[in-house]
Amino acid sequence: MAQGSVIENRDTSADGKANILEAKLLTGYGFVWKTLQHQPALERIVNGKLIDRATAKMPFRPNPFSTRSDYTSWESLSNRRYSSRHLPPPAQALSDLPDPGDVAEIFLRENGKVISSDKSTVLFSYFAAWFTDGFLRSDRAHPPDPRKNDSNHEIDLMQIYGLTPDVTDQLRLHDGGLLKFQTIGGEEYPEYAYDESGKKKAEFSKVPDVPTNLKPDFKPEELAKFFAVGSDTANLQLGFVLMNVLFFREHNRVARELAAKYPSWDDDRLFETARNVLIVLLIKIVVEEYINHITPYHFQFRANPASFKNPPWYRPNWMAVEFNLVYRWHPLVPGTYRIAGDNVPVADTLYQTEMLTKNGLGQLMEDASNQAAGKIRLFNTDPALRQVQIWSIEKGRAVNLASYNDYRELCGYPRVTAFNQISGDPKVQESLKSLYGSVDRIEFYTGLYAEDIRPNSVLPSLIGRMVGIDAFSQAFTNPLLAPRIFNENTFSALGLEIITDTMTLSDILHRNVAGSDKRFIGMTRRDWKRSRG
Amino acid sequence: MAQGSVIENRDTSADGKANILEAKLLTGYGFVWKTLQHQPALERIVNGKLIDRATAKMPFRPNPFSTRSDYTSWESLSNRRYSSRHLPPPAQALSDLPDPGDVAEIFLRENGKVISSDKSTVLFSYFAAWFTDGFLRSDRAHPPDPRKNDSNHEIDLMQIYGLTPDVTDQLRLHDGGLLKFQTIGGEEYPEYAYDESGKKKAEFSKVPDVPTNLKPDFKPEELAKFFAVGSDTANLQLGFVLMNVLFFREHNRVARELAAKYPSWDDDRLFETARNVLIVLLIKIVVEEYINHITPYHFQFRANPASFKNPPWYRPNWMAVEFNLVYRWHPLVPGTYRIAGDNVPVADTLYQTEMLTKNGLGQLMEDASNQAAGKIRLFNTDPALRQVQIWSIEKGRAVNLASYNDYRELCGYPRVTAFNQISGDPKVQESLKSLYGSVDRIEFYTGLYAEDIRPNSVLPSLIGRMVGIDAFSQAFTNPLLAPRIFNENTFSALGLEIITDTMTLSDILHRNVAGSDKRFIGMTRRDWKRSRG
Repeated sequence: MAQGSVIENRDTSADGKANILEAKLLTGYGFVWKTLQHQPALERIVNGKLIDRATAKMPFRPNPFSTRSDYTSWESLSNRRYSSRHLPPPAQALSDLPDPGDVAEIFLRENGKVISSDKSTVLFSYFAAWFTDGFLRSDRAHPPDPRKNDSNHEIDLMQIYGLTPDVTDQLRLHDGGLLKFQTIGGEEYPEYAYDESGKKKAEFSKVPDVPTNLKPDFKPEELAKFFAVGSDTANLQLGFVLMNVLFFREHNRVARELAAKYPSWDDDRLFETARNVLIVLLIKIVVEEYINHITPYHFQFRANPASFKNPPWYRPNWMAVEFNLVYRWHPLVPGTYRIAGDNVPVADTLYQTEMLTKNGLGQLMEDASNQAAGKIRLFNTDPALRQVQIWSIEKGRAVNLASYNDYRELCGYPRVTAFNQISGDPKVQESLKSLYGSVDRIEFYTGLYAEDIRPNSVLPSLIGRMVGIDAFSQAFTNPLLAPRIFNENTFSALGLEIITDTMTLSDILHRNVAGSDKRFIGMTRRDWKRSRG
Repeated sequence: MAQGSVIENRDTSADGKANILEAKLLTGYGFVWKTLQHQPALERIVNGKLIDRATAKMPFRPNPFSTRSDYTSWESLSNRRYSSRHLPPPAQALSDLPDPGDVAEIFLRENGKVISSDKSTVLFSYFAAWFTDGFLRSDRAHPPDPRKNDSNHEIDLMQIYGLTPDVTDQLRLHDGGLLKFQTIGGEEYPEYAYDESGKKKAEFSKVPDVPTNLKPDFKPEELAKFFAVGSDTANLQLGFVLMNVLFFREHNRVARELAAKYPSWDDDRLFETARNVLIVLLIKIVVEEYINHITPYHFQFRANPASFKNPPWYRPNWMAVEFNLVYRWHPLVPGTYRIAGDNVPVADTLYQTEMLTKNGLGQLMEDASNQAAGKIRLFNTDPALRQVQIWSIEKGRAVNLASYNDYRELCGYPRVTAFNQISGDPKVQESLKSLYGSVDRIEFYTGLYAEDIRPNSVLPSLIGRMVGIDAFSQAFTNPLLAPRIFNENTFSALGLEIITDTMTLSDILHRNVAGSDKRFIGMTRRDWKRSRG
């Protein structure tokens, strides 16, 4: 792969001296970091300091602006149906921007050539898409208002519990704290939402329908296999189905364990306590597996609330419109999926739940762990996603985002003055130049994905920084992690044990699928080796 | 008045040494405090330290419990339609509590004998009731669910703007940033919500109706005089009407000033900027007039956001069920109101807007400033409010509140062991003893109001402490006061000037009522003198 040489060719003069030094400290001295991490008290403190430092790269919430108006109003400060924004619209909007269709072209794979990630697996891509669906939720109106969102602004595992209490209510069995389930091939799955004739079951009337923007209609036999789960993306792509079933099974497993240990508890208490545990399990995996996979650092972050003492980033959550664009990692999608021995085109993994029920969760999680994801960069998105790219570009323009360089500055990077400071790849440089003419005219969305990935990292620099800021500052403000709440009263002694014992998706899978002990389940490729670059 | 001797008779051994010392420092050394307050930099720092200290008397939000359930659940941590609570229900509920009707009796005035406050005016009582109506809002269902609320949990001046955007929209003129108005006797008032036949005007269809729990029906000619304002209490009592009209007028005045200064601004921007200014004016008056009136301290608190640097109490607001009971200051209501030379029974000040339009705002604000409010204590509530007392007692029991002593402990007061540690008044001691038998059985609501008021204070001790904690920690977290928001961009240069120049209701009145310069407008009685007690 050409990665090494591309990076060598990049002009690093606009990286910022402090940033270069920081990266050197964090990505070098592996032995020191490893030693440090063996001392729990020190690990706890360093964990807090590094996270405080990461979130301080941008001003703290509350943001003065939302997509509501170009000035600050009570509505813009309080109505979270509008998205927050990190920068107000620029005084002078970028004008004469290139056609979104032309911009989309430089995102797409040429002649179907996939550039693979040397670090990430398809399981990572599945998790990323499913996890972010829990809070980066676009407006549900048709057509969606680009200024609005449909998010609870919390990591609340709405993917399996639903956005609102009425949905949660319909998904519950109301017995033993369980979610409604069925058994197929000896494994536990959510119930189907539609009957054989393709009619929505009355008991699931509030459960969201499948969105029809990618496929306008379904045959009754397709509908009949859709699971009743919390999010409208529940059955969209195989990855969503896998993750939903995994966390769904873990909920029911935890509820049954709690029921055995606390026989006096009623259905409500079992359900709510299992849910408390599950939400924190998700946060654990986000920090301890997913974020550690993303960063190139030696230090492994921990979801330990004791690392923080009144941090300045502890402010009410509010998802930003930029965060939504930062998280469009379509290049992760490979050309075809390797599933149970077959090569399956991407389109054939949409709206398929039988692929899972036929092969079982263990097999498909293992398959996803054994296949490389695509690399996040330009010229590496499946052409089938061209329209989705156009929507992304149009969304940034509809809310009049500031330029790529403005956002670099906001996040503590010097403004770039030449195209070769963004990427060492001549093709990327030329395509940016021909579309935008000058680096100051590059729009936010394009600039994000045009940057080279640094060694051992998964994300281009600015994306990495913005993901870190929003992920840490919005995950660790979850009320379940608050000082008076993160304790045995909230989770039970058993629940707290389960939380302590969980760091990875692999941990959850192996306790829910019998006989899967030997399967490799991971976000990081088995053959990945840290480079010294 | 017997105040002095009653206080001397109280056994202070359960006041707590640290509390006594703190009170001594804050209520003595007047000269030192005054000198300190003349140095802006020092004042700013001391202001922050004292407020940090006041809010640290109770554990910080987020609270683990709400009225949703006796254990912590995602719903109890996120659904703010349920009220927060400072303490969970006790493991052993208080049992065999006295009949609520019997408890209500010890709140009521005997033979109509009013005990007057030597410090507070009726204007203070008007402001207190109207201000707290903005966020302590009971469930609107019939009958109300005692666990639920109908609050936005922010000081957002919903009293004049409404709880929701659809109400705001109907109240706006949509021209010049103004609220819809009419002119009566040369003065500006909100429009009437109903027509001559008592039918709600279509343009105000979303404006809340008058609640019917105090009076079940109205004649058309009564309805025809009800103002269209944000809250359902808008026309309830004369005090609400006065405060609404005052802030309503100030909104339109500010909007007109902004329009003159910023002629390019459209209606929306004028409205929203005026609203930003008005909300902060309310917070200014709350801190700089209202709270300073309440406390016995020499130091005068300032609504200066620069006093705070990432305080630990800066957490999302959530009104507590206890806060609601802490704020039932019915004894403030005098026996009769002195209005434009007449003595008017309390009942005759309900649902009366013509009393204001006939006499004018200046006259009625002056009348309220020249009359003493009642003193907050037992045996001093108008018997007409007996049912309201019963509801309060029942509300505390419905949500299974912990005992008075448990709340003392939570707030840093030693538990009392004898009735004469609560009050020096033998009648209060005896009535508590006969109702509850032991001090540990006294319920929260009764205990709050049974405590003696300390010298120069307006509130009994535990109420004072709890009001301070919730008021400070929920007012200063208003997003308009946040570091990146409290500036000229948000309020305009003119708006910021208006904010700086406003400390009291008197300031606002005098710029809105021509020829009222000589009227005395104040929450503190003109003849009040600080005692050395």
